[in-house]
Amino acid sequence: MTAKLTVVYDQPTDPDAFERHYAEVHVGLAGAIPGVQRAELARVFPKEDGTAPPAYRIAEFSFADYDAACAALASPEGQATAQDALTIGTGGVQFLLSDIEVG
Amino acid sequence: MTAKLTVVYDQPTDPDAFERHYAEVHVGLAGAIPGVQRAELARVFPKEDGTAPPAYRIAEFSFADYDAACAALASPEGQATAQDALTIGTGGVQFLLSDIEVG
Repeated sequence: MTAKLTVVYDQPTDPDAFERHYAEVHVGLAGAIPGVQRAELARVFPKEDGTAPPAYRIAEFSFADYDAACAALASPEGQATAQDALTIGTGGVQFLLSDIEVG
Repeated sequence: MTAKLTVVYDQPTDPDAFERHYAEVHVGLAGAIPGVQRAELARVFPKEDGTAPPAYRIAEFSFADYDAACAALASPEGQATAQDALTIGTGGVQFLLSDIEVG
């Protein structure tokens, strides 16, 4: 019944500025979200032909269940983190809340 | 140094047919890919307002490192699974290969 929030960032307009803010501010905000059982932060590899990959970063946060995930997103810490994600996600950002069936 | 492949399926044209093929064929194909350390299959929750969520399914496969992930994707089993994903992903499918920095 575990639920997870997957955040997919597309290529930001200024990757260096993104990385700086992500490390110095965003990770700390996300770390304060209540109910997170597991967080996984990943950076999409460049493609071997040098072209931009179809996304930039993926962040995932696992919760006990759907209700816990919704409560976390609705919390002040969740709202602040989501707002910050939208601010730094200058290339676009997707939030996907899913039901982990296997894993 | 762990690498993961994230597969994001957008809404398929026929979700029932997708689910049937996914359960009966696709999961078996994916299970034969060499070097997978962890597989996580998740289905995106419907949105509370009843509108379609921005994606349909997320599947993730972790590997020891980038080279192991590339070898898996290039293997006959990886190629067959990717081809099957493209066939069932009638709404579109994204493959993202990323470096897990935290998690």
